[in-house]
Amino acid sequence: MLVKTVIKDIQSLALKKHREQTGCYVAEGPKLVLELLQQYRQQIVAIYALQAWIDTNQSLLNDLSVTCITAAELDRLSHLQTPHQVVAVVRLPQRTNPIAAAQFTLACCGLQDPGNLGTIIRTADWFGVRQLVCSIDTVDCFNPKVVQASMGSIFRVAVHYLDLENWIDQHGAVPVLAATMQGTDVRTLSSLQEAILLIGNESAGIPASLLARAGATVSVPGKGQVESLNAAVATGIILSYLR
Amino acid sequence: MLVKTVIKDIQSLALKKHREQTGCYVAEGPKLVLELLQQYRQQIVAIYALQAWIDTNQSLLNDLSVTCITAAELDRLSHLQTPHQVVAVVRLPQRTNPIAAAQFTLACCGLQDPGNLGTIIRTADWFGVRQLVCSIDTVDCFNPKVVQASMGSIFRVAVHYLDLENWIDQHGAVPVLAATMQGTDVRTLSSLQEAILLIGNESAGIPASLLARAGATVSVPGKGQVESLNAAVATGIILSYLR
Repeated sequence: MLVKTVIKDIQSLALKKHREQTGCYVAEGPKLVLELLQQYRQQIVAIYALQAWIDTNQSLLNDLSVTCITAAELDRLSHLQTPHQVVAVVRLPQRTNPIAAAQFTLACCGLQDPGNLGTIIRTADWFGVRQLVCSIDTVDCFNPKVVQASMGSIFRVAVHYLDLENWIDQHGAVPVLAATMQGTDVRTLSSLQEAILLIGNESAGIPASLLARAGATVSVPGKGQVESLNAAVATGIILSYLR
Repeated sequence: MLVKTVIKDIQSLALKKHREQTGCYVAEGPKLVLELLQQYRQQIVAIYALQAWIDTNQSLLNDLSVTCITAAELDRLSHLQTPHQVVAVVRLPQRTNPIAAAQFTLACCGLQDPGNLGTIIRTADWFGVRQLVCSIDTVDCFNPKVVQASMGSIFRVAVHYLDLENWIDQHGAVPVLAATMQGTDVRTLSSLQEAILLIGNESAGIPASLLARAGATVSVPGKGQVESLNAAVATGIILSYLR
């Protein structure tokens, strides 16, 4: 049986403050944990799982700290609406500096929805984008819902939080594109190996201070009545043309 | 003050069974309700809102049934994690038959995530797709999370639930495309005015019985390590090339 403090500690990792204090975050479900076991094993701090999951994955566990829990305990540990067999506590990656300019970078300006950020990280991974830079007010990428929506891409794509204005000013040689509602038709752009693509907040878009630093704007033309595309869908469409 | 039965009735609209019994669903937040007031007024059954929202929108309310509620009551009524000023009870649209073939139709095969279906409806609207057909086991489009993620597009795009195999068999003259992992590169396809595009379940994809009815498969080429794109992002990318 799990002691109450363990449950409390893991629940507390829903908050960024506690993730930073402990240096840990949570990844859940068989898919993500299998990926950790197979490719990012050294990042695993502890695993809490149902007996059935342990039985299935026994050969991969060896030296790892694995605690068998009941379904009721899983319900309490989990940050998901529908908990799924296993919860891993994972070490936060070492903070590094974003690689300067010689690659394609997504820049998120104040995204708030964890599902959107996670899906953008997954989409970046799909298109071979290796790094994201995020404004300080963007939702934290180790929020459990971001981790879940990233479908494991959070283990691979580097996400940095920084002052975007400053960072862009230091990388002025790279083309800066802003995804906006009234930009150049994305279908007319040619593919780019090096660029910074700015993605705005779900309702407020890209702040003027960042928009002023973009050399070009880009849009996905539509013909319906809805005001805008979802941020992750728009990012995916633009990346499919630029990458 | 709201009577308990009203709160219970509105809460119960989270379930499809109750939506079908009452013929009503819920749309929340100032953006969606404003759109209802301006364009789909006749669909509104009742509005429950904070005094501040009522004050702002007084000139639009006239003959409508509007109940002033407290923030605490809103918390109880709302199906959102972060309730937002106003909840409208809306009449379910009359069941109609999907328009036969002479247009572009999205066909969802067993999608389970309400956020994905809502985002797909929003994306369809953006690209001028007027109808979706969904397999019976697809999440219900009037689920509050679908309504929310659709950002109002649910008021405009017709969504039909039916036996997809049968329906496709009746529309054999229209090209049927299936979004799969190993299909033709979407960038090589030309735009289509009439087609049925099959979108699969988040993990199981498209059932073999439907895949067998597709004349062609289509994929979004990727270069990262993640297994797949999110269903709504993939749909958006494919629509951007086909529409």
